[in-house]
Amino acid sequence: MQLDEVYSGLTVDRPAKLVLVVLDGVGDIAVAAHDNRTPLEAAKTPNLDALARQSAQGMLIPVSYGITPGSGPGHLALFGYDPLQYQVGRGVIEALGLGMELRPGDVAARANFCTLDAKGLVTDRRAGRIPTETCQRLCEMLSAKIKRIGDIEVSIKAGKEHRFVVVFRGDGIEGPLTDADPNTEGLAIPQVKPRHPDNPRQQKMAKVVGEFFKIGLPVLAKERPANGFLMRGIAHQPHMPSFEERYRLRAAAVAVYPMYKGLAQLVGMRKIEGPQTISEQFERYIAEYDNYGFFFIHFKYTDKFGEDGNFQSKVKAIEEFDAALPILLGKRPDVLVITGDHSTPCAVKGHSWHPVPVLLHSAYSGSDGLDRFTERLARTGSLGMFEAKYLIRIMQANARMLDKFGA
Amino acid sequence: MQLDEVYSGLTVDRPAKLVLVVLDGVGDIAVAAHDNRTPLEAAKTPNLDALARQSAQGMLIPVSYGITPGSGPGHLALFGYDPLQYQVGRGVIEALGLGMELRPGDVAARANFCTLDAKGLVTDRRAGRIPTETCQRLCEMLSAKIKRIGDIEVSIKAGKEHRFVVVFRGDGIEGPLTDADPNTEGLAIPQVKPRHPDNPRQQKMAKVVGEFFKIGLPVLAKERPANGFLMRGIAHQPHMPSFEERYRLRAAAVAVYPMYKGLAQLVGMRKIEGPQTISEQFERYIAEYDNYGFFFIHFKYTDKFGEDGNFQSKVKAIEEFDAALPILLGKRPDVLVITGDHSTPCAVKGHSWHPVPVLLHSAYSGSDGLDRFTERLARTGSLGMFEAKYLIRIMQANARMLDKFGA
Repeated sequence: MQLDEVYSGLTVDRPAKLVLVVLDGVGDIAVAAHDNRTPLEAAKTPNLDALARQSAQGMLIPVSYGITPGSGPGHLALFGYDPLQYQVGRGVIEALGLGMELRPGDVAARANFCTLDAKGLVTDRRAGRIPTETCQRLCEMLSAKIKRIGDIEVSIKAGKEHRFVVVFRGDGIEGPLTDADPNTEGLAIPQVKPRHPDNPRQQKMAKVVGEFFKIGLPVLAKERPANGFLMRGIAHQPHMPSFEERYRLRAAAVAVYPMYKGLAQLVGMRKIEGPQTISEQFERYIAEYDNYGFFFIHFKYTDKFGEDGNFQSKVKAIEEFDAALPILLGKRPDVLVITGDHSTPCAVKGHSWHPVPVLLHSAYSGSDGLDRFTERLARTGSLGMFEAKYLIRIMQANARMLDKFGA
Repeated sequence: MQLDEVYSGLTVDRPAKLVLVVLDGVGDIAVAAHDNRTPLEAAKTPNLDALARQSAQGMLIPVSYGITPGSGPGHLALFGYDPLQYQVGRGVIEALGLGMELRPGDVAARANFCTLDAKGLVTDRRAGRIPTETCQRLCEMLSAKIKRIGDIEVSIKAGKEHRFVVVFRGDGIEGPLTDADPNTEGLAIPQVKPRHPDNPRQQKMAKVVGEFFKIGLPVLAKERPANGFLMRGIAHQPHMPSFEERYRLRAAAVAVYPMYKGLAQLVGMRKIEGPQTISEQFERYIAEYDNYGFFFIHFKYTDKFGEDGNFQSKVKAIEEFDAALPILLGKRPDVLVITGDHSTPCAVKGHSWHPVPVLLHSAYSGSDGLDRFTERLARTGSLGMFEAKYLIRIMQANARMLDKFGA
């Protein structure tokens, strides 16, 4: 019997309130350049400290040992979906990041403009990183020409510099396809093919993409340097059991950036639009408190400054979060969790594989007697180190939503 | 999707240097007889202490909870091969321990001389533990008589006391077979049978072993007390994906004892012959630094003195290792790991199931702020407690050899 089925069988309907606060990329490592302290250790966090004294702590492994998760797997794991089982294509993630509305079954491709020579060979895979405005103009030209291919609707949206996304909507299509990208310069753009050659939906999708190139390339023929384009990660939005059915919790996402709203939407959470700062996010949570059983609140800046390798700004972001925390604590849900989707150590300047500290407060969490919420203390906490996909089950248990197993 | 496939898909080619130092059986337990200190705690290790201050630590579970690994599973796990999936027969391990060169497909059997009565019943399964010299003489007699059986080459090599190994090489054979050993006295030697009766390669192998007994037993008929022999663990060298393909690292083994060279060779590492002391091993590593991406350096004496229950000598072995450590640290690889293949507590006088401390140093390990490398401190470290088979993936991550998973 699958463990997921066991959990489902034990889950009871109960008017509970669960709150998951994600400090994106909050986890870090202690290095000599920063006095062997992590940003969580260096930050002044009186409110978080007070909460820590009444909470349990532990460490999360987002995917598995040594694996650095993207934002997709990092969040799906926190939502309780095994990120190895539910893999979301790059096209879908990029579409979500641009705020495109995806429906189940939509096929999305990550695309970018490139430069082709007279023979059709790729001479620059990024078309000299054209300005975003040029990208927008070229996307409009493509959109004007390609609204449908047969019975398939086509949506095109510009990203930054040379990047854009194409979404295909209609019956009888799915991914994944091979890439329309030689992955190196000096070669022609390869034709896409079904990853599973016998799958008729992938066959249809490959024809649609072939047609997209046939119509689209002539549109750009006179442009310089962006007279061509490539497509990668062509896949459909995978079927995901809805969050509400799975956990019997009506869920809302209070996020600022489109990517995280999109990831929440993938599992059926409602997006709460409007708030721009963490204080506004918390205020909105308080306002919506009675309307949902589960809140996902996303804070981006810990990750952003980790990616920049900017230790002081990551510290400040944590302090800014701490200053807003009393607003969040205005309501006392059954379970409050503060954690990250992955680590983004300043020394790495990117996502990493390092385990992520987690804090859990409930009437049944007990107190670990720890004075602060840091990596070093969290690894001595009562929750131990465990795969992030189990976190939501521990939250449900703390909300008394899981029946006894066996007599 | 299998996790191994995920890791393979994420692995990138990169000119990296990874070093795995195995202090065989280093893990121990604190008992009152030794002031509740382990050998790692009792030893004076200034060099290791300095390294510990800049490193991450954790605990390894070699196979699973409560399982005491032999040297084979202990090392295969450190090499990243699931020891439950890749089981190597006792015959193969013994052959490697005697320094016999095995090729993929060779079938090896662990054998020993015994005493038979006039009816052919086993009266002493160890033939009174005959001296090693007698064993050598008897093996030479058998070798002289049995060089081939049909198209199968036969090699025989004496071990200690009553023990020897037989290796069969040729086409169309494989193991495992049942044992030619009644496992108790007063019974006849059973005929070997295929473990899978329908497997024609095992059928052929069973005939070859039957023939070996038919020719071999008369050779010993007049000997006393060793007038017979038994065979166990008859199996072929299993197919193992090569270390180099699996991790994209050209690997070398710097070991003194044949068993560990053999285990490294099973996964395709090159053996570096010559060095006899740990200082010589480290010097040779420095000399070969440019030639390999992965070094496995094996230190035997922590295990040896643990097996003897000799606490003071195990402490001294650790101090001897520490004294040589500055040679190793003459090069700074991307990742340096110091750990054991299992624990060999002095109080157990043998291998044990206890988790094993591990130290990992890299530019991205962070510092756990621990002043020494000991069992007690390692279990508070940032790596947590995990199955040894994942260690190499964490090493690859620290060497930036694993791409991000998902977008």
